[in-house]
Amino acid sequence: MRQVRIGLLGCGTVGGGFVRLLAHERARIRSRFELDLTISKILVRDVDRERDDVTGMDIRGLLTDRPMDVLDDCDLVIEVLGGVHTAGTLVRRSMARGRHVVTANKALLAASATELFADAARNGVAIGFEASVCGGVPVIGALRRGLAGDSIESITGILNGTSNFILCRMAEGLGLPEALLCAQEAGFAEADPALDLSGEDAAQKMAVLAHVAFAEPVRRCSVKGIGSVSLEMIAEAHAAGSVIRQVAEVRRVAGGVELTVEPRWVPIGDPFARILDEQNAVRIRARAAGEIWLSGRGAGSMPTAAAVMSDVIGCGRQRSFA
Amino acid sequence: MRQVRIGLLGCGTVGGGFVRLLAHERARIRSRFELDLTISKILVRDVDRERDDVTGMDIRGLLTDRPMDVLDDCDLVIEVLGGVHTAGTLVRRSMARGRHVVTANKALLAASATELFADAARNGVAIGFEASVCGGVPVIGALRRGLAGDSIESITGILNGTSNFILCRMAEGLGLPEALLCAQEAGFAEADPALDLSGEDAAQKMAVLAHVAFAEPVRRCSVKGIGSVSLEMIAEAHAAGSVIRQVAEVRRVAGGVELTVEPRWVPIGDPFARILDEQNAVRIRARAAGEIWLSGRGAGSMPTAAAVMSDVIGCGRQRSFA
Repeated sequence: MRQVRIGLLGCGTVGGGFVRLLAHERARIRSRFELDLTISKILVRDVDRERDDVTGMDIRGLLTDRPMDVLDDCDLVIEVLGGVHTAGTLVRRSMARGRHVVTANKALLAASATELFADAARNGVAIGFEASVCGGVPVIGALRRGLAGDSIESITGILNGTSNFILCRMAEGLGLPEALLCAQEAGFAEADPALDLSGEDAAQKMAVLAHVAFAEPVRRCSVKGIGSVSLEMIAEAHAAGSVIRQVAEVRRVAGGVELTVEPRWVPIGDPFARILDEQNAVRIRARAAGEIWLSGRGAGSMPTAAAVMSDVIGCGRQRSFA
Repeated sequence: MRQVRIGLLGCGTVGGGFVRLLAHERARIRSRFELDLTISKILVRDVDRERDDVTGMDIRGLLTDRPMDVLDDCDLVIEVLGGVHTAGTLVRRSMARGRHVVTANKALLAASATELFADAARNGVAIGFEASVCGGVPVIGALRRGLAGDSIESITGILNGTSNFILCRMAEGLGLPEALLCAQEAGFAEADPALDLSGEDAAQKMAVLAHVAFAEPVRRCSVKGIGSVSLEMIAEAHAAGSVIRQVAEVRRVAGGVELTVEPRWVPIGDPFARILDEQNAVRIRARAAGEIWLSGRGAGSMPTAAAVMSDVIGCGRQRSFA
């Protein structure tokens, strides 16, 4: 039995989900993978705040507001803080200390995947980021390993569940502000939904997929959000047998890849038209394997926590593990 | 640059596809993964036969009809012979010699996955088998790694492209014998299609998925093929808004898992109803991640060769590699 002591940076939606998931899966993971996963420390902003999320588990003794307490006292660091600067600093320091890192941070990876991967290699640690794109749908693994032997030609996806949820409500007649409110009430959208609506969230996720699939720089990038989509445009598309979806795409061009995010007309017979509400879907076109589709719940506490957990197991099973 | 010398057991549909794929992907794999893949020997039945499949590549000097020539002179063995007995013996001998093994052999895995995995662990080698189920769709990797952190509740799939192709032709009015001929002409069905039609091929594939997902024994197994499906039954289903699909399923029951393969009525609104011709699709239900769908071309020379190649890269990147 290999012991893996986990330092958790952040205990919000995903971090809290991870704590709950570990309570449920720990015995199975012990017997299946011979890994004994324990949480050694949890970084939070306010150690005294009441935490509904993790009711029933006595984690108070693990909480700290000092990041170095977490990094010093673990084998592996999970970063679920979000944001680029603090998270990036702590991820780099974790790797410098020889900790494997699992992160759900698409913004961080979109900004500096190349440097982080180089850091990981230099420090002889693994970096897992399955949770950064499409929550519980293992599309990173599919590109990183399952399709490693093939040349990827393009990746197309509905990667932002909030935008898709809003477009589905608008197709039912709600205006954008009401549809957004609906998404916020359902817990999908952030209080500040600018990243979702602007297409920036989808662009960050597609940048992560592009990095894994192509290892070539993004040469051109065009990002249009759904803010300008009106009920009239949706009705016009509908009359022509289509729906509107926020579609992200990356494809090879000379000297690199081209990334676009835009609201697109999608014929109702197209699989993307059938992706409803907060679902995500990705179509990978590969030279030998043809078209491969993956879909499922792209966000949410538990699906994202499950992706984090899978990466933790992957890191724990590495032979290099101390 | 790490050298990986590949011994290829078999040069039929998948083996020939692998030789062609390697010619195309070798430079990319060198630069992307720092792996230099070369084929050291190829086991064939008749070294003198003309080989259209691999035209343009001078592989004649690599051909041998002596299995031990292949096993002795490589770092990694690809087994694409099919069948259980000879293939099983050679896979075990390869592992005993310390060779990593990549196999597309669902029958072998369905019969003896537990022993083969124990053999691999004992010999400190990896065994890759992504190509054994759903060709180029990376469902094995999704279950082995991407969903390792979650509890799988059930797996449901259309896993036999030939049966699905036949059912689609029958839905257009062809009788089963004509639809089968159609499948054979399109290159999907074997000359002896008994494994496809009986449901046995789908059952073998589902047994492999069950092994990866549950690590628990199959307690009950019920396999019904499409041989008894008539045009009348298809018309009856159609009148009720359904199509018939050969559906394989595995789910948890007390003390293990239950595996079924059967022709099922599928409502036309169900994603499985939209899986046409030789396509494969798998729905995984996981406790935390919810429903995850994967689909794509489930068979064929190049998609299957791409899955083999991905496993070869995965083995080659192992730190344990000599």
